[in-house]
Amino acid sequence: MTYDPALDLIELALREDLSLGDVTSESTIPVDRQAVATMLAKQDGVISGMETARAVFARVDPTITFQPSARDGDRVTKGTELARISGNARSILAAERTALNLIQRLSGIATMTERYVRHLDGTDASVIDTRKTTPGLRYLEKAAVRHGGGANHRFNLGDAVLIKDNHLAAIGGEHPIRDAVTAARKRAPHTSRVEVEVVDLAGVQEALDAGADIIMLDNMSLEDMRAAVELVDGRALVEASGGITLERIRAVAETGVDLISSGALTHSAPSLDISLDFELAKS
Amino acid sequence: MTYDPALDLIELALREDLSLGDVTSESTIPVDRQAVATMLAKQDGVISGMETARAVFARVDPTITFQPSARDGDRVTKGTELARISGNARSILAAERTALNLIQRLSGIATMTERYVRHLDGTDASVIDTRKTTPGLRYLEKAAVRHGGGANHRFNLGDAVLIKDNHLAAIGGEHPIRDAVTAARKRAPHTSRVEVEVVDLAGVQEALDAGADIIMLDNMSLEDMRAAVELVDGRALVEASGGITLERIRAVAETGVDLISSGALTHSAPSLDISLDFELAKS
Amino acid sequence: MTYDPALDLIELALREDLSLGDVTSESTIPVDRQAVATMLAKQDGVISGMETARAVFARVDPTITFQPSARDGDRVTKGTELARISGNARSILAAERTALNLIQRLSGIATMTERYVRHLDGTDASVIDTRKTTPGLRYLEKAAVRHGGGANHRFNLGDAVLIKDNHLAAIGGEHPIRDAVTAARKRAPHTSRVEVEVVDLAGVQEALDAGADIIMLDNMSLEDMRAAVELVDGRALVEASGGITLERIRAVAETGVDLISSGALTHSAPSLDISLDFELAKS
Amino acid sequence: MTYDPALDLIELALREDLSLGDVTSESTIPVDRQAVATMLAKQDGVISGMETARAVFARVDPTITFQPSARDGDRVTKGTELARISGNARSILAAERTALNLIQRLSGIATMTERYVRHLDGTDASVIDTRKTTPGLRYLEKAAVRHGGGANHRFNLGDAVLIKDNHLAAIGGEHPIRDAVTAARKRAPHTSRVEVEVVDLAGVQEALDAGADIIMLDNMSLEDMRAAVELVDGRALVEASGGITLERIRAVAETGVDLISSGALTHSAPSLDISLDFELAKS
Amino acid sequence: MTYDPALDLIELALREDLSLGDVTSESTIPVDRQAVATMLAKQDGVISGMETARAVFARVDPTITFQPSARDGDRVTKGTELARISGNARSILAAERTALNLIQRLSGIATMTERYVRHLDGTDASVIDTRKTTPGLRYLEKAAVRHGGGANHRFNLGDAVLIKDNHLAAIGGEHPIRDAVTAARKRAPHTSRVEVEVVDLAGVQEALDAGADIIMLDNMSLEDMRAAVELVDGRALVEASGGITLERIRAVAETGVDLISSGALTHSAPSLDISLDFELAKS
Amino acid sequence: MTYDPALDLIELALREDLSLGDVTSESTIPVDRQAVATMLAKQDGVISGMETARAVFARVDPTITFQPSARDGDRVTKGTELARISGNARSILAAERTALNLIQRLSGIATMTERYVRHLDGTDASVIDTRKTTPGLRYLEKAAVRHGGGANHRFNLGDAVLIKDNHLAAIGGEHPIRDAVTAARKRAPHTSRVEVEVVDLAGVQEALDAGADIIMLDNMSLEDMRAAVELVDGRALVEASGGITLERIRAVAETGVDLISSGALTHSAPSLDISLDFELAKS
Repeated sequence: MTYDPALDLIELALREDLSLGDVTSESTIPVDRQAVATMLAKQDGVISGMETARAVFARVDPTITFQPSARDGDRVTKGTELARISGNARSILAAERTALNLIQRLSGIATMTERYVRHLDGTDASVIDTRKTTPGLRYLEKAAVRHGGGANHRFNLGDAVLIKDNHLAAIGGEHPIRDAVTAARKRAPHTSRVEVEVVDLAGVQEALDAGADIIMLDNMSLEDMRAAVELVDGRALVEASGGITLERIRAVAETGVDLISSGALTHSAPSLDISLDFELAKS
Repeated sequence: MTYDPALDLIELALREDLSLGDVTSESTIPVDRQAVATMLAKQDGVISGMETARAVFARVDPTITFQPSARDGDRVTKGTELARISGNARSILAAERTALNLIQRLSGIATMTERYVRHLDGTDASVIDTRKTTPGLRYLEKAAVRHGGGANHRFNLGDAVLIKDNHLAAIGGEHPIRDAVTAARKRAPHTSRVEVEVVDLAGVQEALDAGADIIMLDNMSLEDMRAAVELVDGRALVEASGGITLERIRAVAETGVDLISSGALTHSAPSLDISLDFELAKS
Repeated sequence: MTYDPALDLIELALREDLSLGDVTSESTIPVDRQAVATMLAKQDGVISGMETARAVFARVDPTITFQPSARDGDRVTKGTELARISGNARSILAAERTALNLIQRLSGIATMTERYVRHLDGTDASVIDTRKTTPGLRYLEKAAVRHGGGANHRFNLGDAVLIKDNHLAAIGGEHPIRDAVTAARKRAPHTSRVEVEVVDLAGVQEALDAGADIIMLDNMSLEDMRAAVELVDGRALVEASGGITLERIRAVAETGVDLISSGALTHSAPSLDISLDFELAKS
Repeated sequence: MTYDPALDLIELALREDLSLGDVTSESTIPVDRQAVATMLAKQDGVISGMETARAVFARVDPTITFQPSARDGDRVTKGTELARISGNARSILAAERTALNLIQRLSGIATMTERYVRHLDGTDASVIDTRKTTPGLRYLEKAAVRHGGGANHRFNLGDAVLIKDNHLAAIGGEHPIRDAVTAARKRAPHTSRVEVEVVDLAGVQEALDAGADIIMLDNMSLEDMRAAVELVDGRALVEASGGITLERIRAVAETGVDLISSGALTHSAPSLDISLDFELAKS
Repeated sequence: MTYDPALDLIELALREDLSLGDVTSESTIPVDRQAVATMLAKQDGVISGMETARAVFARVDPTITFQPSARDGDRVTKGTELARISGNARSILAAERTALNLIQRLSGIATMTERYVRHLDGTDASVIDTRKTTPGLRYLEKAAVRHGGGANHRFNLGDAVLIKDNHLAAIGGEHPIRDAVTAARKRAPHTSRVEVEVVDLAGVQEALDAGADIIMLDNMSLEDMRAAVELVDGRALVEASGGITLERIRAVAETGVDLISSGALTHSAPSLDISLDFELAKS
Repeated sequence: MTYDPALDLIELALREDLSLGDVTSESTIPVDRQAVATMLAKQDGVISGMETARAVFARVDPTITFQPSARDGDRVTKGTELARISGNARSILAAERTALNLIQRLSGIATMTERYVRHLDGTDASVIDTRKTTPGLRYLEKAAVRHGGGANHRFNLGDAVLIKDNHLAAIGGEHPIRDAVTAARKRAPHTSRVEVEVVDLAGVQEALDAGADIIMLDNMSLEDMRAAVELVDGRALVEASGGITLERIRAVAETGVDLISSGALTHSAPSLDISLDFELAKS
């Protein structure tokens, strides 16, 4: 129950849904009515967001009891009970949608990630995310990628150096890769590695010469990736990026790259269907 | 340039990406370097979020010039220029990812909505959204649905009455539908209609008898929907909900329902690919 | 103890009073001194804000015990004990003024509303509020109106359509009422009714023809109101607005209008006098 | 245009009204429609809140032009034009209610204060406010009291010492007044005076002996007030408090007290009626 | 456990350190590992910030147990145990740095203040602080000065009048001191005293004549201070300001001034060294 | 003029000083009085915080003109003019203290850092900061260290791995260093290096064997540092930490360590004296 970086987002989400109260519950359900509800997976998938869902219920009403029966990172099948929630009926209804919206989205990301990861079985490559996350949800979505077995790229613009095509265009000159890597190395904390994006083998060579720690191959052919890996020969980490699909990911991994990054994990994963079902009140 | 309800979300998103500054730009790009960049559609689709993208650039640096060449709701094809952005190079790079993350996601929703809407051509049914939106982005995502030609269901728990299965379970008794509709009618502002979710024709009848303004048919068969429409006979609006797919939506519309709601529009629409490309600096 | 939309206001109010601490209590009262205090009605009236007062004490110090002996909506007489509060003396003093400021103001509104409502005894009209509420307190003040037996008009600019004189002036053209009602019907959620303000019988007719769900009669004579009710004949709800006083409200109701709205309920109700009295410490 | 302590309140108020947008204007008024509106006094009174109203319009849309023709503190008569506002029609409508709610309430306070002040003409007493202000609006309401010709008591619990009945009850012992004044004198900044509330002449004497800078006479008879003033004889400021009405205020002043405080100024002043009228659009 | 004005600062500080989580603890320490840690003084000094440190641990994880063995204002020697903290190991590590950063800085201020205060032993002068505090920490730093035995000057620009050199320059005219004191006396609450800064004896005389309650002698020689004290002769409080060092403070006090203010207390006090040491886990 | 991560802190600081307005200026200086003021260095030093000071003035009043004549990182001597500020007199006075408090503190840090850096002339070691920064000011203080010629260690708990003594105590077991480095390597983004703190040469060896990227030598003797550097032999970066003083820093650098970290830079640097002087108003 440590400090939760997601609390600002939860606050924003609850304000969005509850700033005028809940006119339906307030007018139809007695103020002291108790209820018990079950959270159920309606599809196979990997769970992420259980702690966040719990935080939503706790924020809406600290007297709600939330008993999880699955944990972030668990693979579950359709019909698995994920949690049992009991307490004031109005409170549970007030939190329901926000909690489900979060756990469904995050579990969708974990599920898609896990599918990618499984395709890499037996290779040395890792699946990693990008900064193409939903605004406001980055911390949660990056955790979801880890729950699905993937790893994280940098969190934001300040915690690591990644020199991209637009930086190189803005720098200009004859050797923008070399100039940029050198400058970044000086300014970045010693705890950070320096990564640069290149589009061809000449770029790989320039990055290596400049002492880049990580080289991102942007939208290269499989053949060029193989050549890049050979050229780098362990002197830097190699990341493949661009156009990564489930169909193509294994072939990419087999070129020998260390890392495969995919924006789709966080910007295009469909939600995992999860429901909350009330038990009938005894009348 | 009126008050923008999305500003809290934009603030949260920028803090997420920029709270430690931008170590790459700060170390590689001269502080006064100017740049010009083009925002391009990389796929066919419907645009939403242009005003929000503009707001992101303005929040990062009010001296950036943002010239849109497309508007929210426009159908565009791959390669269409959407906007031209010029100003300080570091500023544009600082805003780029947040602006793109928003416009890509929102345009994804508008694009998916428009596809649904087109399938209803010639019917009387409207496509509407739900509260299954991304936490923190509801206002923007509901606008995206309108940009795609859809309409909006209620915004939150306070602005309209919608009595759902879990309410009915919590109410209990022999006539929960009747009791709930009656109670809600008293408490809700006279400006709001009262909607109730039912699962069978008996529920439709009970809702009608109680004076519901709108009846939501939850996961009913096409046949039952047709019967429900007939039973209601114009005395209430009829909304179909649950399991709406592109394949099935037209058949649902042809049962005569007034409204078809889909959570997938906002929880599972893939992003529309949009890029920002810097022109090369003259060295 | 569900999510409380008033918490932002409570936070602002406490910051206002306590951002520099409480120099009097800190310098005169021992840090562990306990106290018991009684909240008393000093006038006859209707209570509103009990839950908010409780929330203020809980925010200042969660170890304070707050035992209410009256509930929101209760009619009380001078001298009635409303609550008994015990705990740390400094804490109670720190919360006292903010809690009283809220409950006095809200009970003032409930009391004035109840007086209006009583004047309508035996008629079919409801007393409703407006958006002329105290900035920052709208949610609480609309609850106070309900506690006094009134009903609520829309909460804000986004949750219902109300086309007013200034909209019609801005729209212009020959048929602004017709044009506005038609446009609004298309854009508003199907859960919202469409209301339009008119100043004469011609306006009533135009509104009816355009399919308005609710027609607001602005500052009309009793005679014109009667004529309007007759003209509408149940095809729309009719709301009387403007210049509603205790003296005139019954006559307005007897014209047959459905709703009577009054801004004075929230902008000009005097506070209800409520005090907090410490029991003497045993020395 | 210095830093405005009211901005947090304005933010809260706008969020309250505009967090879902403005469905009426958005659906009925063209996005680029321009408008001109006049702010008018509909009653005689004293204006307060002009700068705050201007800040509301500026926050909603910085391109709005706001030309005031009256200033805070001005006495105006029914029909006086207070300001002329021009700009985007939707923007003006979005800001209208919040701006009016503020200026009406604040002008109501200034107007009531001025009435009290006028009753004291020729006496030496000042009218002052209390902490019985509307939660969230204290800074503005205290300015309104000044605009009406009154003066301010302390702003909050931290900026001055005021030992009240409940403090004395919590302190207990035989000489709570003496003990409290002495303790407070030590802890309070040297820039603050120390004030104590007493209920009888013995209390006045005890306060004087303890070196109180200001003595508040709580609900004393006119006769006792006169005796207190005589007893104090210029060695402390004397404040009369409790049950101050327009009828009684002059008599209180004539007892020779220095200050007369009234909570009603801020908790029970009716709004001053002020309207915003659009000029007709040319069609 | 009353309302804590430092909570906004604590929130900002925790966001600064924890907004991306704690990658070290999360990857190396089991989620349920318990720990016990001791907070120790590593130097002699005066403690301040114990309650704030406790609040930091409580904010990070309310299940942490924090048992203080010293209190704010205590003089401690190197090696003194200040508190014992037990609970979840990750939680304690997450809060550690923020808690220490605060208590070290505040104890540094208390320690420096106490040294100044001790130098005044036997004189009548008080050591007071200024507004030269760390942005965001003023409330805490002023408490630290009190914990060190000093007293507080005004808290902010609104709670007392202090007319400084720049005000006098801006006012201009022949008698800016007189004009300013007179104007301030009218506007300031009656609970506030009026202070003015002067640079020579002529200024002292002008301030006295204008009725200033407090006269600040800015950077005067000891001789002039003595003369000023004589001139004032008890009709106002006299504050010495500017260039106060440990070496010189006693001589300043012996001139007879009432107050000696020092900005260095809050802007240049070195931290007091305080550590947090984990007991070894049993393996 | 890009997004400024310091804005939240500036907001907090201004609220602290201005939440009740500025009673002195408001009562003594005419509302439209213009002023010109000069910011001057009163000591030799290195400037940091110029942009932040500018942001404070802009936040208080955007119409103020701020013309800097020095830049962050500049070495200046006593008497150097740093900036010229002109505009509304009340506005400048309202911003003055907050702006000065920031620039003085930050310049104090830059000045102390530069002194340390100069002592390392001709060695290969860099001076770096720690997380022992002022709560709320970390972003600014880390920039100040760079302005003084130092470099930054990690920003917060989430952007790099640093395994410290308390982590090792909490992990326990026989090989906590090895276990921790291995675990951290898996979880941390590939953009981060892994650092571990050790107290003796055995620890250095264990860290090397585990593949640590950076090894922090905690409070080791110069002799042990030399031995550690030899042992590491370029396979990792070596950081010296603990008890770094101006007297000792060069000797530490000469052991061959790569980095020398000092908490004192940010927790104990005295302010640099900087003043703001108004030009006299013409009367």
